[in-house]
Amino acid sequence: MNEKKSKITLIVFSGNLDKVLAALNIASGAITLGMEVTIFFTFWGLNVLRKPKVNSKIRGAIKRMMRRINRGGVDALPLSRFNMGGIGTSLMKKLMKDDRMQGVEDMLKYVKDNGGKFIACTVTMGIMGLTEEDLRSDIISGYAGVIQYISEAKDSNINLFI
Amino acid sequence: MNEKKSKITLIVFSGNLDKVLAALNIASGAITLGMEVTIFFTFWGLNVLRKPKVNSKIRGAIKRMMRRINRGGVDALPLSRFNMGGIGTSLMKKLMKDDRMQGVEDMLKYVKDNGGKFIACTVTMGIMGLTEEDLRSDIISGYAGVIQYISEAKDSNINLFI
Amino acid sequence: MNEKKSKITLIVFSGNLDKVLAALNIASGAITLGMEVTIFFTFWGLNVLRKPKVNSKIRGAIKRMMRRINRGGVDALPLSRFNMGGIGTSLMKKLMKDDRMQGVEDMLKYVKDNGGKFIACTVTMGIMGLTEEDLRSDIISGYAGVIQYISEAKDSNINLFI
Repeated sequence: MNEKKSKITLIVFSGNLDKVLAALNIASGAITLGMEVTIFFTFWGLNVLRKPKVNSKIRGAIKRMMRRINRGGVDALPLSRFNMGGIGTSLMKKLMKDDRMQGVEDMLKYVKDNGGKFIACTVTMGIMGLTEEDLRSDIISGYAGVIQYISEAKDSNINLFI
Repeated sequence: MNEKKSKITLIVFSGNLDKVLAALNIASGAITLGMEVTIFFTFWGLNVLRKPKVNSKIRGAIKRMMRRINRGGVDALPLSRFNMGGIGTSLMKKLMKDDRMQGVEDMLKYVKDNGGKFIACTVTMGIMGLTEEDLRSDIISGYAGVIQYISEAKDSNINLFI
Repeated sequence: MNEKKSKITLIVFSGNLDKVLAALNIASGAITLGMEVTIFFTFWGLNVLRKPKVNSKIRGAIKRMMRRINRGGVDALPLSRFNMGGIGTSLMKKLMKDDRMQGVEDMLKYVKDNGGKFIACTVTMGIMGLTEEDLRSDIISGYAGVIQYISEAKDSNINLFI
């Protein structure tokens, strides 16, 4: 294992701000330590990769409704606890600023600019009512399914489901 | 590590439909790639292995109540978000059908029929008010505790807590 | 890998009683099997390490509020489901006692007394409104950030995010 570069592969299933922050903190640290970093975004985690506004033409009333009630974009992620209709989430963001903690967007850029890969899960995009047009091409490195995830994860030093 | 078969060991703690789908998707993919697959179901995850109807005689009013409010069976798993008293969950199932995505039951069968193992956690069955009679013997490969989990997990390529 | 001691590294992100129990069960099992055990507590997981009463002088009204509504201490952890204003959590604790399942405090002591390490995440202490004075020095082995986490995790046999 010595000659190979250390590697970390994360699944971000959650679309909650606190969990996404935890994931990106770990990813940023791994980048700083010179590791290979890949994050697969699936289910609610796809919200991290979404453009803030609904864009694509998609067929099916349920898909359109799902896409509408399940708001996406880096700024719309709610806390997993004490969201309180968005008030808790706003306060948390203020605390982060006061503590000079990096936000989601900053960390996405840092990881991406330093070779980290962000993959959108094609299996769940459909049931989340999302097409490639709804997602940010400036951030996404590729689209893939579970087979690519496993191939990547099976020789990683650290695997986490977040 | 080269001569050994690759191995994946999952803990399914959650009884939410979306998380269970994520777990079984990964398990199915690993089976397809020829890996050894073991899933330990614990806490709310035990609901996946439950018969839809309450069966066993169990002592203790609280255990019986827990078993009743915490509904089990593949068809009773709620979404982690937007469950909306079951409406969100029904819509999600419709979307899955439209997208020809396999359901929980199909994936359980695929994994089981191809050598995957499903283990029920004996430590938490008691506090969930469940006995072996409440669980599906057609699906379960065995009953075990945390020591067996660790023995299995410690030489796995991929370990996830879902 | 043979001459090295097996190693398990957990992140406890959740402050829910059921998830904390799962984490400590796994940690206890690993201790019993002679593995090296390290748990990093972050975000809501820091509640496990908190003194039951609010202590430290901390600047900022939002931090003080966060610390107050997000109650801490081993006895204040709520269930992730069916908490029902604390009723569900009390019933669960009764079931655990009836089944002679160890509680959080017992398992913390067992793991700690047998060489397990509990680390408080310094990155998130600030945004959770916590200082070292709010946390239990009898239980905590150290304070660290994400770089130390990754260094520990990258040669662990089992890594989980809970």
